[in-house]
Amino acid sequence: MGLRKKLVVEPGTRVRLKDVDAAFHGDYASAELAKDDLAKNVVRLAELQQKLYGEKKHALLVVLQGIDAAGKDGTCWHVMAAMNPQGTSVTGFKQPTAEEHQHDFLWRVHPHAPGLGEVAVFNRSHYEDVLVVRVHDLVPKEVWSERYDIINDFETLLTTAGVTILKFFLYITPEEQLARFAQRLDDPARQWKISEADYKERAFWDQYIAAYEDMLAKCSTKHAPWYVIPSNHKWFRNLAVSKIIEETLDEMNLKLPAPTVDLEQIRKDYHQAVKAEKGKA
Amino acid sequence: MGLRKKLVVEPGTRVRLKDVDAAFHGDYASAELAKDDLAKNVVRLAELQQKLYGEKKHALLVVLQGIDAAGKDGTCWHVMAAMNPQGTSVTGFKQPTAEEHQHDFLWRVHPHAPGLGEVAVFNRSHYEDVLVVRVHDLVPKEVWSERYDIINDFETLLTTAGVTILKFFLYITPEEQLARFAQRLDDPARQWKISEADYKERAFWDQYIAAYEDMLAKCSTKHAPWYVIPSNHKWFRNLAVSKIIEETLDEMNLKLPAPTVDLEQIRKDYHQAVKAEKGKA
Repeated sequence: MGLRKKLVVEPGTRVRLKDVDAAFHGDYASAELAKDDLAKNVVRLAELQQKLYGEKKHALLVVLQGIDAAGKDGTCWHVMAAMNPQGTSVTGFKQPTAEEHQHDFLWRVHPHAPGLGEVAVFNRSHYEDVLVVRVHDLVPKEVWSERYDIINDFETLLTTAGVTILKFFLYITPEEQLARFAQRLDDPARQWKISEADYKERAFWDQYIAAYEDMLAKCSTKHAPWYVIPSNHKWFRNLAVSKIIEETLDEMNLKLPAPTVDLEQIRKDYHQAVKAEKGKA
Repeated sequence: MGLRKKLVVEPGTRVRLKDVDAAFHGDYASAELAKDDLAKNVVRLAELQQKLYGEKKHALLVVLQGIDAAGKDGTCWHVMAAMNPQGTSVTGFKQPTAEEHQHDFLWRVHPHAPGLGEVAVFNRSHYEDVLVVRVHDLVPKEVWSERYDIINDFETLLTTAGVTILKFFLYITPEEQLARFAQRLDDPARQWKISEADYKERAFWDQYIAAYEDMLAKCSTKHAPWYVIPSNHKWFRNLAVSKIIEETLDEMNLKLPAPTVDLEQIRKDYHQAVKAEKGKA
């Protein structure tokens, strides 16, 4: 169905988010009809991650961005549930600490880059430094406006070490955000997460959209493309993200390494050990 | 069924592993009959971890040790699959790197201790420094023999910062290990993991057992108890470990924090936002 081609931000182009249908759900008429494909993806992701982990020639970095309630946590959970926790990590980037502020903006990010064989997910990322930081004037324009190039260079550096980068911008409408806030208001398990800031940030919606559009235009590159994921439907969001990850891993042509030992010799050792064990009994 | 009491190594006592039945499976006649309890545990673990994460007053460290093929990876997967990947981590400790060798043996471990609200699993751990290191004389006896006290002090330090520590020794028989090696030999997805060392290490079985017994006797403390998990049956191993984690979290009496905002005010803000949204449309 060409989801990947449909959702990628072609390098050098500019997406107008108001032209994107956040409620898009591809060729699936309903969540029910997507169920089998979702389940299949999960199984495939598990297999592919095991190969990536065994081969240790590639690494995968998944970056998630999106406005509050767009579903970053839910996407993390969905994608990672498919994978062996050994060899995978999720890092959430919150407000920088005092120590982090005393360094360049990539200092706190770099240590979490995945090594060969690993999958890392960033729940928010270095892109916050051209999003919230820009919208709220936390640094002067001449500082944040230089960061797009710096980020592109940084991502290039990661790819020189075998990292494939996939960046997902989860896009919901303001109406959908409000509906999700309403659900939180009535859910005792999630009320503690509500902050007034959630509502205050809504006043900056248009500025955020402008910042997202610049981020997508300036930092979708061949080696680290951005995808705009229509996310009003959670099931479609999960399906699109996991499908794009699956296809990307698939193209790596991952192969488990050959045994490093002489299996025949090992079989002999094995039979000897069995004999010895029986001798003891 | 008092599994926890049955499997814990009471501080100050010594376990003779040859007296432990590695095929023990509690009150369950079969894996089939344990299925419902396993599924229930997974749901409970997910709930409890969400509370731990929200409350941020406690942390949990799970340490897994066991001879090769005892099931450390499988246990990790089972336990972590229940939890939100955000706020949880798995660290595998392999042979130390050159840089790690240039520091004290806890230097590489300390950064992976869980912070408040987090769950960390160590797949192997600082205990390797009184296990493989001792069995193969990698440091003199006067060095490794002092490490038991050092480890106890280190674990006490972690508990002062709100960390609860659970340590699981997964115990299988040499016959069960051989059977698992045989399965690997015939599984193309796992042949690459086989090394001759696996078989060579079997020659040191008795020395490992002696080292495990010392570790259990010297380092099972009130604040960081060791549990010996009969692990010949994978399903019982998963059930026992998840049950002990569940009961431990349960005793913390975890509570989600109260909302930090005036929910009534937020409801008003919400209705205002809905109105504004409608005004635009």
